[in-house]
Amino acid sequence: MLLKLPALDPAVAPEHRGSGYPEPFRSRVGGRAKRKLGDACGLTRFGVNLVTLAPGAQSALRHWHTLEDEFVYVLAGELVLVTDAGEQILTAGRCAGYPAGRRDAHHFVNRSGTAATYLEVGSRIDGDNAFYPDDDLLWCEDEAGVYAAHKDGRRY
Amino acid sequence: MLLKLPALDPAVAPEHRGSGYPEPFRSRVGGRAKRKLGDACGLTRFGVNLVTLAPGAQSALRHWHTLEDEFVYVLAGELVLVTDAGEQILTAGRCAGYPAGRRDAHHFVNRSGTAATYLEVGSRIDGDNAFYPDDDLLWCEDEAGVYAAHKDGRRY
Repeated sequence: MLLKLPALDPAVAPEHRGSGYPEPFRSRVGGRAKRKLGDACGLTRFGVNLVTLAPGAQSALRHWHTLEDEFVYVLAGELVLVTDAGEQILTAGRCAGYPAGRRDAHHFVNRSGTAATYLEVGSRIDGDNAFYPDDDLLWCEDEAGVYAAHKDGRRY
Repeated sequence: MLLKLPALDPAVAPEHRGSGYPEPFRSRVGGRAKRKLGDACGLTRFGVNLVTLAPGAQSALRHWHTLEDEFVYVLAGELVLVTDAGEQILTAGRCAGYPAGRRDAHHFVNRSGTAATYLEVGSRIDGDNAFYPDDDLLWCEDEAGVYAAHKDGRRY
């Protein structure tokens, strides 16, 4: 049966690839595909994405957010969660939550041989920033908006 | 392997029953059990609960929120979503989203013979209220806080 809003079959939400990162970082998340379920339902307070990571792909650069909470719930496959404390393996039915402002950068890496799927939730709060301890990337802002910079200030 | 925060095995989060509804409404959600995953991870911007509905149970009184977005994703079993437009059946992998302020009341009912499980996400916004078109229940506020009232104003 075809569902009607507010109900949604995720399969009808378009699959998005790519990212806002400049190269060489964009390619690292090239194996990531997202379906924006929250947007498809008209939500604005938080985003909910159904994410698939191909073997070898990662969810994002390892990062933490200043103002936005994030939460992930693994639906299928096996993912390696990397944080400052090291690595943990999350399988289907396990989850993780990243409180805003906690300076513990995190991401998922799929080191398995099969695709892995998870739900990610993130609040949407004006003025949020993200920091990347492992990579030469900063988000800066001028009158024209946000731009990507090296950590010495040069623009990408 | 025992997971450490920010990762979490939902099985270690306490299971909560009961609700803030006065009787006779509280009993209607007696077959509902929640594990508060977002709280267990220290999140404050939104809540994430892993909810199990026993056969015959419902998620809540049918309601809509003034300021808070809500989202649900079915993990197992079969649930009937009831909205102003009628009923739809959601099985594992289907979802629904309820934008803040949309006056379309919703809830899940488990009419199947087996337990059903879903994730629910709700933003947390001061001043939010919820309305219940099918039931004689209002949330009102005085200097002492929020209280439950009949629709003619009498307190429960």
